[in-house]
Amino acid sequence: MAEIIYPRMAVIGCGLIGSSIIHAARAAGVVGQVTVADASAQSRERIEALGFADLVTADPAEAARDADLVVFAVPVMAMGEAARAAASAMKPGATITDVGSVKAVVSEALSEAVPDSVFVVPGHPIAGTEQSGPDAGFAELFQNRWIILTPQAREDDPYLEAVQRLADFWTALGSNVERMDEKHHDLVLAVTSHLPHLIAYNIVGTAADLEGVTQGEVMKYSAGGFRDFTRIAASDPTMWRDVFLANREAVLEILGRFTEDLQALSRAIRWAEGDKLFELFSRTREIRRGIIAAGQESAEPNFGRDHRSADPDTKPQ
Amino acid sequence: MAEIIYPRMAVIGCGLIGSSIIHAARAAGVVGQVTVADASAQSRERIEALGFADLVTADPAEAARDADLVVFAVPVMAMGEAARAAASAMKPGATITDVGSVKAVVSEALSEAVPDSVFVVPGHPIAGTEQSGPDAGFAELFQNRWIILTPQAREDDPYLEAVQRLADFWTALGSNVERMDEKHHDLVLAVTSHLPHLIAYNIVGTAADLEGVTQGEVMKYSAGGFRDFTRIAASDPTMWRDVFLANREAVLEILGRFTEDLQALSRAIRWAEGDKLFELFSRTREIRRGIIAAGQESAEPNFGRDHRSADPDTKPQ
Repeated sequence: MAEIIYPRMAVIGCGLIGSSIIHAARAAGVVGQVTVADASAQSRERIEALGFADLVTADPAEAARDADLVVFAVPVMAMGEAARAAASAMKPGATITDVGSVKAVVSEALSEAVPDSVFVVPGHPIAGTEQSGPDAGFAELFQNRWIILTPQAREDDPYLEAVQRLADFWTALGSNVERMDEKHHDLVLAVTSHLPHLIAYNIVGTAADLEGVTQGEVMKYSAGGFRDFTRIAASDPTMWRDVFLANREAVLEILGRFTEDLQALSRAIRWAEGDKLFELFSRTREIRRGIIAAGQESAEPNFGRDHRSADPDTKPQ
Repeated sequence: MAEIIYPRMAVIGCGLIGSSIIHAARAAGVVGQVTVADASAQSRERIEALGFADLVTADPAEAARDADLVVFAVPVMAMGEAARAAASAMKPGATITDVGSVKAVVSEALSEAVPDSVFVVPGHPIAGTEQSGPDAGFAELFQNRWIILTPQAREDDPYLEAVQRLADFWTALGSNVERMDEKHHDLVLAVTSHLPHLIAYNIVGTAADLEGVTQGEVMKYSAGGFRDFTRIAASDPTMWRDVFLANREAVLEILGRFTEDLQALSRAIRWAEGDKLFELFSRTREIRRGIIAAGQESAEPNFGRDHRSADPDTKPQ
């Protein structure tokens, strides 16, 4: 077992990511006691039943009391309120972090809410599934995935040590650690995560609302490509509403680029410009090869799912 | 073993789909001899090496000679030429089919090219992977997937028998058979396959061309959603160029709807209309549940790929 990094860890908001952090940190042996605060009575009941926390409460302050690390894992627009609720109980010298998908807004909200005696180190693990809630968590979620830390602009040793300790914690959970300016994070993630979710939600919505094609047909023939989009369009609605509200500017900027490119593609189809289509369709392959080479994707055809969905019980008709 | 349905089958164009049909038909025991024509010398060499065909040739007529079933599995805009090249050798009473993703254009091209003495029954298996070429094929590809047949508007018994025989063939390969009007097929597939591919190609292209975000960053942080899109954007460029040229009207119509919806979503973000976002993000979940219930998708989080990509050899740094 590794050495304990945080004798007491509090997780405020215990859904997919919060519960996965607890499982991963326990598996790595880097935490002692774990306390959890969650606003949902139903979630608290599940967490009690699953038994992975030493204390489960509705009160962020009760969970944060005496904690060496406080992890906020609530939707990004709820971070400020949760941090304010926990602030009075925070131990001087504690590290305060989060897992939000937007960093500038959250960093400001956390910094404003907590006392000067704690160290605020915002973070974002680039990992997840389309499922939500405390039952969805698992210890391997962060294996070989990136965690981006967006530390504050301060250079004092105690703060730098707190940042390093948090980096060590994530390394122990299997992650690769990157440090980044928060504004740049929000732009990069607008491309690699927020726009893809927006597009996926949109196309699934469009398909659901057509008159000439039934929802049953959309479902039956979804293996032609559509089903891929439905995975991320099944992600948690509250979390994603908040992401788009919190990262509005970067998302609208990237969406503008996407729309511009789509208009050009539409025009190429209308005028039967096959060469333009072929050129784009050829160079997009390289990006996937790069992602597979970077260890961020399965190299198996169809994500490998063909070998898992052949259950005869699910055969229609 | 099942009874042989076609004593001699010719496959014209032997990539992912063509080779999968051969593997599946052999595994099911429903074909006798198998002949293959492919225009690519490199592909012919691989097919010879893989050894799944009884005859490999560059000449469609040589492959089609005496065949009871001729399957055209070339890009949709190449169907007419391939059929013309094979027409003179076709046996009276043979069934002529294809696997193209667009049906109106292909149906017309096939019908014009072949003699009246054969039965043209266009088809489209809703199955595939992002890989191409004769090495990519496998016998299980069509298991529990839909095959859409778009028969001609004729009611004579010999034709109806030929359609039924082809349906039996696909059933033996593990598919579920549906018959559909070709125009309706092209609209349905514009939604469930063509638009998703267009959007995926577009977003990957947009991400590759940004100034503020590097391709390396896009690859590293792709697990936030982007990587899902790169799978279908890695599909065969020639095939997909042809699909968009051949199904232009339906694709542009559906793309218009998508763009309209995207503008509304963009406006909701700009004006911070959280309720509108939440409403859309909530109802898209249902569609995925339907697809999983219909047996067309893996129910596992992240398509189940998390349990396969944990190879430590691929860990970056």
